[in-house]
Amino acid sequence: MDMKNLIIAQSGGPTVAINASLAGVLKQNQVSNTFDTIYGSLNGITGILSGNFLNLTQAVEKDNTFIENLKNSPAMYLGSCRFRVPTVEEDQSFYEKVFQVFEEKNVGAFFYIGGNDSMDTVDKLSAYAASHNKDVAVIGIPKTIDNDLVHIDHTPGFGSAAKYVATSLLEIAHDTYIYHIKSVTIVEIMGRDAGWLTASSVLARNGYSNAPHLIYLPEKPFDINECIKDTKELLETQDDVVIAVSEGIRDKEGNYISASEAKTDNFGHAMLSGAAKYLEQKLHEELGVKTRGIEMNILQRCASHIASETDLNESMNLGKTAVELFEKGETGVMATLTRTSSNPYEVTYGYHKVCEIANEVKAVPQDYINEAGNDVTHKMVEYLRPLIIGEAKQTYENGIPKYLNVSHLIEQ
Amino acid sequence: MDMKNLIIAQSGGPTVAINASLAGVLKQNQVSNTFDTIYGSLNGITGILSGNFLNLTQAVEKDNTFIENLKNSPAMYLGSCRFRVPTVEEDQSFYEKVFQVFEEKNVGAFFYIGGNDSMDTVDKLSAYAASHNKDVAVIGIPKTIDNDLVHIDHTPGFGSAAKYVATSLLEIAHDTYIYHIKSVTIVEIMGRDAGWLTASSVLARNGYSNAPHLIYLPEKPFDINECIKDTKELLETQDDVVIAVSEGIRDKEGNYISASEAKTDNFGHAMLSGAAKYLEQKLHEELGVKTRGIEMNILQRCASHIASETDLNESMNLGKTAVELFEKGETGVMATLTRTSSNPYEVTYGYHKVCEIANEVKAVPQDYINEAGNDVTHKMVEYLRPLIIGEAKQTYENGIPKYLNVSHLIEQ
Repeated sequence: MDMKNLIIAQSGGPTVAINASLAGVLKQNQVSNTFDTIYGSLNGITGILSGNFLNLTQAVEKDNTFIENLKNSPAMYLGSCRFRVPTVEEDQSFYEKVFQVFEEKNVGAFFYIGGNDSMDTVDKLSAYAASHNKDVAVIGIPKTIDNDLVHIDHTPGFGSAAKYVATSLLEIAHDTYIYHIKSVTIVEIMGRDAGWLTASSVLARNGYSNAPHLIYLPEKPFDINECIKDTKELLETQDDVVIAVSEGIRDKEGNYISASEAKTDNFGHAMLSGAAKYLEQKLHEELGVKTRGIEMNILQRCASHIASETDLNESMNLGKTAVELFEKGETGVMATLTRTSSNPYEVTYGYHKVCEIANEVKAVPQDYINEAGNDVTHKMVEYLRPLIIGEAKQTYENGIPKYLNVSHLIEQ
Repeated sequence: MDMKNLIIAQSGGPTVAINASLAGVLKQNQVSNTFDTIYGSLNGITGILSGNFLNLTQAVEKDNTFIENLKNSPAMYLGSCRFRVPTVEEDQSFYEKVFQVFEEKNVGAFFYIGGNDSMDTVDKLSAYAASHNKDVAVIGIPKTIDNDLVHIDHTPGFGSAAKYVATSLLEIAHDTYIYHIKSVTIVEIMGRDAGWLTASSVLARNGYSNAPHLIYLPEKPFDINECIKDTKELLETQDDVVIAVSEGIRDKEGNYISASEAKTDNFGHAMLSGAAKYLEQKLHEELGVKTRGIEMNILQRCASHIASETDLNESMNLGKTAVELFEKGETGVMATLTRTSSNPYEVTYGYHKVCEIANEVKAVPQDYINEAGNDVTHKMVEYLRPLIIGEAKQTYENGIPKYLNVSHLIEQ
């Protein structure tokens, strides 16, 4: 059997761990020699259409620190795209073009690292390959800070984002405690439809600090009057109230609690910002105390300097798993991890049919949220805690992190 | 000579290094045995009035990790206050009360760690002591992330904030590079009157990334039309433009850019838009590209997890210097550091009369800013670089930093 090549690409929003999965694929191939050459397609699947590739096998051979450095670098070494793959009915020529490139480059497998939309691409391409007798395996490797993919215990990138959120929340709490005056601080955290990342703020609680004192997730309708009441009650016995709030909180009619105009992205998703700013104003008006809204913004998905070691290692392992899945002859699947124990924390690696993953959203279960809808339960803490354990080793140069050179993304 | 006690307090806004100066005082006293008992006054000078003290000598004796842990904890272990000390003419009883407490507690010195306003307090108290024959030395220890104190090369807390800003800016840049579309990202950085911290974003530039591509400080009038022109020009040759902007930028009439346009949201509330949000809207309107405003907010002053080792060590040394200044019989002075060389970086410690420091502001010199007013010069880079070197060793517990317990601030 002659050795085939691999094309790999990244898509969707960046995370701190998506490069670690790429690193895992490269590292495994050093050992297993599964693929001859591994090509990186730049800017997701659009690199296949435009013929924009990096020879990653060469990069690894030239620089023996490449894989380790890649593992610890934020965002996406191969760049991303926001490209919705058409159905075969909409545009068969798209598929013909892609599989023509696969043939020209002697490609045996295409790996796509991404979230929901990327898994939809994996689904479509693998279905096309199956129905058109193309001998190319199409395998998904998960990532998303939102942690909203189904059939996987948690997603790569989430643990690091959660570690950033919990650490920053604790630091913000220290900041609020210094004045002997009443104050309310509202911290807005990413997660449009799923409250996992907002929930991870609970990990900031320690032996002396109970911040965030209130946590609101999009999985329960948000009632501004309840929030005002809860905050007021807390202010009777403490100076400072810190509130963690999801960017996606909605009232019981389903309207976003957001101070800014609704914009939509290319996928028709609502783009949100402003829940914190809205609450900053509203709680100030109602309670007359000092209020401050803080938007954690994109730093929560790109702060490699505070990455979770557990997260990066698991992301590497999922890359390795994808190579093993190819060797077993799988296609149309996503590499997954399953938790076998929380204490001690243990996971096993496997796979699941991607058609059952794409376009599904894993919301926070109701028993992970308290009845009042203003906090999470112990189940949530038990679930989350292991994911942020360990500090990834970061190298610094001139006082800033030494990340992998991405000039190929900047200069293209 | 019988041994006297010390009262020490912290004031103003928090920094990552203000506890390190407190740690430096405690550590030096272990060696020098200068003071019998060191009391921490809670919430700045107001703790003296309310009799709210912590016995820090006891805390050190009880826990041999206390000093190291204090050095690495954010915000203010003793809390802060926003209390403007009256002049003697306004309220002599204030001074009588303070010095009565000093006498009751057998106090030989009062150390105040803070910025501009705190140095004003040091000035007033030391002047009162001198004119009323009180044998209490009053000594200031500097801190402020704004780096705007005069007669000192740079201030404790600034280097760590600068390291956070530079690191985060680089991570944001990686985030922007992933899409092959035109985008403008505006990052708003603290510093209302002095542009030092905004300037420190320049340290994010490395061998492959030139972000921030534009830097605007409050020291030069901001011209929105020039900014639009500069951004447009850059977009002709590159996809992504990252702009670092001070929260305090003003037009040539002196009006804050942030306040120049008020908007109303869906709920009918006025949206208080900062400089970044304003530019996000304006540049989107004018250039038609994707824009995003990011406010770094208070994380830049409380992110101990990415503290500069140089900053924390210098802050410790300034605490030590204050003890030595007391031993030399000084009062009405602030401990200072002077740079004797940038390459290799070297500083010496000394002092300066606080009356010449209080209420002055050190703005960025014009030759640290380029002529167009949209970048900093090499002089600035040379000045800033040494201050962010080194990563403070942080201890973690359960995945989050193990900071010093501040329950005394929370429960009071």
